[in-house]
Amino acid sequence: MKPYQDPAWSDRMAVSLDYNYAMADLVGDHGLREEELEALAPRLAKVHQDLKAGRQSGCLPFFDLPYQTDIIRTISRVAKPFLEWCWEFVVLGIGGSALGARALHQALCHPQHNRLPLGRKHHRPSLWVLDNIEPDYFYGLLDGLDWRRLAINVISKSGSTAETLAQFLFVYQALKGRVGEDKARERLIITTDPEKGPLRKLAAQEGFLTLEVPPKVGGRFSVFTAVGLLPVHMAGVDLEELLAGARFMDQRLQNSQPNDNLAYRLAALYYLFATGQNRPMVVIMPYASSLAGLAEWCCQLWAESLGKKVDLQGRVVETGSTMIRALGVTDQHSQLQLYIEGPHDKLITFLEVEKFQHHLPLPPLFDYLEEFRYLGGHSLNELFKIEQEATAFNLRRAGRPNLTIRLPEVNPFTMGQLMFLFEMTTVVAGGLFGVNPLDQPGVEGGKQTTYGLMGRPGYEHFRREFNAAAPKLAKYIIK
Amino acid sequence: MKPYQDPAWSDRMAVSLDYNYAMADLVGDHGLREEELEALAPRLAKVHQDLKAGRQSGCLPFFDLPYQTDIIRTISRVAKPFLEWCWEFVVLGIGGSALGARALHQALCHPQHNRLPLGRKHHRPSLWVLDNIEPDYFYGLLDGLDWRRLAINVISKSGSTAETLAQFLFVYQALKGRVGEDKARERLIITTDPEKGPLRKLAAQEGFLTLEVPPKVGGRFSVFTAVGLLPVHMAGVDLEELLAGARFMDQRLQNSQPNDNLAYRLAALYYLFATGQNRPMVVIMPYASSLAGLAEWCCQLWAESLGKKVDLQGRVVETGSTMIRALGVTDQHSQLQLYIEGPHDKLITFLEVEKFQHHLPLPPLFDYLEEFRYLGGHSLNELFKIEQEATAFNLRRAGRPNLTIRLPEVNPFTMGQLMFLFEMTTVVAGGLFGVNPLDQPGVEGGKQTTYGLMGRPGYEHFRREFNAAAPKLAKYIIK
Repeated sequence: MKPYQDPAWSDRMAVSLDYNYAMADLVGDHGLREEELEALAPRLAKVHQDLKAGRQSGCLPFFDLPYQTDIIRTISRVAKPFLEWCWEFVVLGIGGSALGARALHQALCHPQHNRLPLGRKHHRPSLWVLDNIEPDYFYGLLDGLDWRRLAINVISKSGSTAETLAQFLFVYQALKGRVGEDKARERLIITTDPEKGPLRKLAAQEGFLTLEVPPKVGGRFSVFTAVGLLPVHMAGVDLEELLAGARFMDQRLQNSQPNDNLAYRLAALYYLFATGQNRPMVVIMPYASSLAGLAEWCCQLWAESLGKKVDLQGRVVETGSTMIRALGVTDQHSQLQLYIEGPHDKLITFLEVEKFQHHLPLPPLFDYLEEFRYLGGHSLNELFKIEQEATAFNLRRAGRPNLTIRLPEVNPFTMGQLMFLFEMTTVVAGGLFGVNPLDQPGVEGGKQTTYGLMGRPGYEHFRREFNAAAPKLAKYIIK
Repeated sequence: MKPYQDPAWSDRMAVSLDYNYAMADLVGDHGLREEELEALAPRLAKVHQDLKAGRQSGCLPFFDLPYQTDIIRTISRVAKPFLEWCWEFVVLGIGGSALGARALHQALCHPQHNRLPLGRKHHRPSLWVLDNIEPDYFYGLLDGLDWRRLAINVISKSGSTAETLAQFLFVYQALKGRVGEDKARERLIITTDPEKGPLRKLAAQEGFLTLEVPPKVGGRFSVFTAVGLLPVHMAGVDLEELLAGARFMDQRLQNSQPNDNLAYRLAALYYLFATGQNRPMVVIMPYASSLAGLAEWCCQLWAESLGKKVDLQGRVVETGSTMIRALGVTDQHSQLQLYIEGPHDKLITFLEVEKFQHHLPLPPLFDYLEEFRYLGGHSLNELFKIEQEATAFNLRRAGRPNLTIRLPEVNPFTMGQLMFLFEMTTVVAGGLFGVNPLDQPGVEGGKQTTYGLMGRPGYEHFRREFNAAAPKLAKYIIK
């Protein structure tokens, strides 16, 4: 039996939420009152009904992904021959096609995974998620790799993402040059829509190996599909445990009363601080370096889902809030001064890890100096934990609301819980903000201008529009 | 002659500022009017006088650091024997003792510097800036290193930073265990205050090798001291060129009229958007992966310098603004939706690089599909540049003010300019916000609580205070 099949273990691994320091009882006037949370109950009940209906009617298919465990068999089957020879697994993707895999890789693999010798990582390849087309970065990262042992996973739901297709053209040409066309062809996996889009057409034409992104699952909600799962399976992450964690969270949320529902409560807190309290920023500050990537993933999910010009009734609202990544303890020496003394415009969310894998004792060296003496005999773990408590406490004392999401450990099961929780929280928040959390109309303009300037047929209008805009004035340029 | 000694080359490498899209003439009602900038002139003149006086009286010594080129000789001398054997150069430091070196390393070394074989990096060591004490991260990063070839640079201006001293205790003990005490002792360089603090006392007692942080140069203004320079010298960065860039910027700023002064204009724009326009956020979005670390460095400089509770007259103002790091083109698929359609609460700052080292052509493969055809024959460089222009243009069209700081290339000379520019901009902004940009009183509370909870003698009061606070309520915890 795997540990996560044991209900007692799963319960011990349950993620929890502590929002004491967000409430007026503890943080003072800048906190919320219980009545404010209660007043939101009718709206949350409405959101709840809508979500239930949406889920039943198949509009929110990503919430059911953790139950589709046959994806794990498919991925294992596809990955198996690659695992026999591949040392460098390169993901070409951007946004939702990159951030989920990177978050899981960072959280669940050795911090030096990409630098360790094969024998120290169960012969799993390094994982490179190349999510920029900046020439020196792109060239430089590829330059350091062993091309004889390199596989490419091209990921784009739509199959038409300009950056990803451009990366693919460059890398495929280079790979052909190094290993020949026949071999290059075998070192490629394309993850895209099952039926539509240019990558699907290309794969059919060329006979490339493919995996599917289920229809109606947008990029930022695709971590539990092949988009997120294949890359981290290659790197050695236990997919069964990850999906079990997501299911565990889903069951918990489905079986909770609104007041006890982690996602509803979190969405309500974020919504009330953003609107009623006029705090446009949510800081997400893991006390764990391994969760920095998760925080980046959350920032995308939150920004693209809620940052919207029009609401569901078509009214111009220009709403949303800005989620910002920070990192404990590091940012105590960077951002904390601002958080404690600056404007009252933030709600801080800590991600706390109760138990780390390693225990690092501090030896009683140099204890003739008082500044060393109080450290010796303690551990780095103790200092880390105490600093986190001291930070939350001092924010509270300064009237700065903060809350803590607590993980017993960082493992695939808790990561599955957390990612599912944030997906649900975001969709619930969409209901409270009154916007469609599943679209991203604001980025279309930039794509069209890009196509126009690249000379793509059919987009000449956008080039003309760009060229016709009022020109820049020299007086606003300092050279 | 080195290139930066040629005035024509230096002029070609000058950093410029284009704030067209921040002005109402081009971006519409959400932009600034020229009169608003002009109205700030008297206050900027006052700030200018204060800075000049401050600089003459020695209160702002960091502005003179780029002229103290004997530091380069000192660093070369100290580094030389280390360069003969060292493969892993480990910095133990946090905040201002970490971010400058990391920014320069990321900008000026190969993107795979820490993974490349020695022969491909002129036999320069890998550089590891360990700025967190999270146990699994800290253990994991060290675990991957070659300890026979490892040197440690402990950096703390005050000499008492708890995180850094704790890291030092752990690593020094481990190093002694691997190479013996005599050798461990020789693999250590301490960078701290020339006279005061526990690290200085320790070094005197134990005979450890040291470098100095000049008095009155705080952590976040210390990049042009041994704090930032030794680590990146080890990694192979040209310090002469870096300091020449900083001097070039200083001369330019000193010889400009206020209207033509990059730092004053930038500070004025940031100040006016934050206060008059009620935009609490400045996004700093380099279009260059290599500048992500520079953006992090800027975020610290800005947050700790300007996020202040009291102004220079002692009035409670709770002021400052929040600088947020983003990255082009990557964040077009993450944050741009929010920037274009969400609340009007941001000013976007692009960092644009005109010329990259590598030119990556896109081959005309798969051109039977239209989505590939328009890319073939272009280059990744073109696509990258066009996307940046399209993003700025579409932000402008949506009435979202943005400005661009332009670098001809990323090299030590332009990095020196940029870092000096941001230091000056921050200090000028301090004058406009009316706060002391050189202190950080808000983080003292957390340190005291930490000392108290760690049992440090003299800090019992803070432990009692922590324990006496109203306890958390179970009803605000969801388990």
